[in-house]
Amino acid sequence: MSAFAQQSKVAIAIHGGAGTILRENMTAEREAEYRAKLEEALKAGHDILEEGGTSLDAVVAAIQIMEESTLFNAGKGAVFTNDGKNELDAAIMDGKTRNAGAVAGISTVKSPVAAARMVMENSPHVMMIGAGAEQFASEQGLETVDPSYFYTDRRFEQLEKIRNTEKSQLDHDGDSKSAEDKRQGYLDKHFPDRKFGTVGAVALDQNGNIAAATSTGGMTNKRYGRVGDVPVIGAGTYADNATAAISATGHGEYFIRSVVAHDITAIMKYQNKSVQEAANTVVKDKLVDMGGGGGVIAIDGEGNIAMPFNTKGMYRGSIDTEGKVYIGIYEDEQP
Amino acid sequence: MSAFAQQSKVAIAIHGGAGTILRENMTAEREAEYRAKLEEALKAGHDILEEGGTSLDAVVAAIQIMEESTLFNAGKGAVFTNDGKNELDAAIMDGKTRNAGAVAGISTVKSPVAAARMVMENSPHVMMIGAGAEQFASEQGLETVDPSYFYTDRRFEQLEKIRNTEKSQLDHDGDSKSAEDKRQGYLDKHFPDRKFGTVGAVALDQNGNIAAATSTGGMTNKRYGRVGDVPVIGAGTYADNATAAISATGHGEYFIRSVVAHDITAIMKYQNKSVQEAANTVVKDKLVDMGGGGGVIAIDGEGNIAMPFNTKGMYRGSIDTEGKVYIGIYEDEQP
Repeated sequence: MSAFAQQSKVAIAIHGGAGTILRENMTAEREAEYRAKLEEALKAGHDILEEGGTSLDAVVAAIQIMEESTLFNAGKGAVFTNDGKNELDAAIMDGKTRNAGAVAGISTVKSPVAAARMVMENSPHVMMIGAGAEQFASEQGLETVDPSYFYTDRRFEQLEKIRNTEKSQLDHDGDSKSAEDKRQGYLDKHFPDRKFGTVGAVALDQNGNIAAATSTGGMTNKRYGRVGDVPVIGAGTYADNATAAISATGHGEYFIRSVVAHDITAIMKYQNKSVQEAANTVVKDKLVDMGGGGGVIAIDGEGNIAMPFNTKGMYRGSIDTEGKVYIGIYEDEQP
Repeated sequence: MSAFAQQSKVAIAIHGGAGTILRENMTAEREAEYRAKLEEALKAGHDILEEGGTSLDAVVAAIQIMEESTLFNAGKGAVFTNDGKNELDAAIMDGKTRNAGAVAGISTVKSPVAAARMVMENSPHVMMIGAGAEQFASEQGLETVDPSYFYTDRRFEQLEKIRNTEKSQLDHDGDSKSAEDKRQGYLDKHFPDRKFGTVGAVALDQNGNIAAATSTGGMTNKRYGRVGDVPVIGAGTYADNATAAISATGHGEYFIRSVVAHDITAIMKYQNKSVQEAANTVVKDKLVDMGGGGGVIAIDGEGNIAMPFNTKGMYRGSIDTEGKVYIGIYEDEQP
């Protein structure tokens, strides 16, 4: 390929969580905050791409702005576990090499997505968990924080509210329920508004390389070291230049069981479908049949972007190959 | 379906790890021990299937025999971490419901595969890690053990040998190496014999339901809470009645990045390939291109079994729908 043939199209898409996000439950002020922060994250990633930076740099930059914002369930502002802690998960994947990195159950690294990237680039491993992952990140020179850094009043109040609901519902939770009933019951109890606040980004850079990354605080009131789909490569995060880069947000257990991100790439590769067709099939048909709420953002090697979700809303945004900026929250806002 | 139309074909396959397993490095006595234990595990699972038990019960029974044997890197006889501990991972998946359960980084539950099953059946979650997973297993009444239960002299000597090798090689490990070089270098150092000792089982029961499960101690000398492919649903373990049940063994990082188990089912579903064709494509072509050593066992809803590997050997066995028993260790032993 000659220097003149270098691809110069760039594009980026982000999400800040999906769920029952309705206009009637939103103040104008709060909505404006979300739109402004989504746009800030998008532009941070897009600036890097325009300057010739890599898709990996772009997705990390976009996610770090959302990790640092208390609006989203990732980094600062993450939801609390049953023990009153914040346990964070993140993953990243490079579509060019199919290298990947993931961390789960960490509480002391300021930027979980940066930790995932260190695992990918500076270790022979793909996935690290708990104290071991924290030690690695610290040895790599990443900024560590006291776990209280992640605390916000709003999330702690959510935990207390759910704990109280749980207490009052305990009598109705017999052992005779099936795992499926328990899963749906758990969902009703722990996400009364069915909102999944993971953040993610996918991007295409000037060299034609795509990347995906995702970061989350998981489920409010989660117990037992529960890990969702985010750090499960293939479920919440996947990237392959040959198909697409994907980041998901939703009810993690269903996304793991459906291997959502990899399934989208498999439909593209083996059935020769577009990124939009493949993402729609998985999110709007297959996940709906299973009962799994949520959505994905996806980008292919040409910069085509798909952002399907099967919930009432998804915080999302994109800057396409033409430079057109789009921000959406509700169902009826199409690019 | 009438009672008379009930399917009665049953079949099972197991593995006990893949790698550079050569006749010249094996004593006749040790080889006989492996063959006997593989046959014992196979028959335990097959007996359950013949008596009308579920494929889930069969894969758990087969794996527990291998977990309790010191011959394999799972349960008792698992390899040691850099800290001199045994940290175990396991997963299970039900092809009928596509429910799944996984645990990672646990040290006090006697049967990790039983813990994974409890996560699947008695929790709303799919994946639990570390102390939280141990607490859940204990609350569910699973047998817990002192971590010393998993200790064996043989594995501890392996750790010490690798630690010494590592010390002497430290000077050659510059920071300038790429992640890919580090991965291969790590492999050479930590698996001088390139042997991956995970155990797994797949089965078809009389109701036509398939299941897969896998259990492992991971990599000798692993650090930083490293987790391999085993508890990553879609990578080391996957099951869907519509396609196949799969359990993998090999260099976990490559198996995660390739989403090996789900990729096999995707090729079957979207390209209408047989389980043998799909498993061969992934293990003998795609993984080899990437540099990922290992193998899989796979079974479809008709009881067709595939056991491809790209290493010198794989401890493996099967009882097919005709009741024919097969045990293999080396490359040249075909069913």
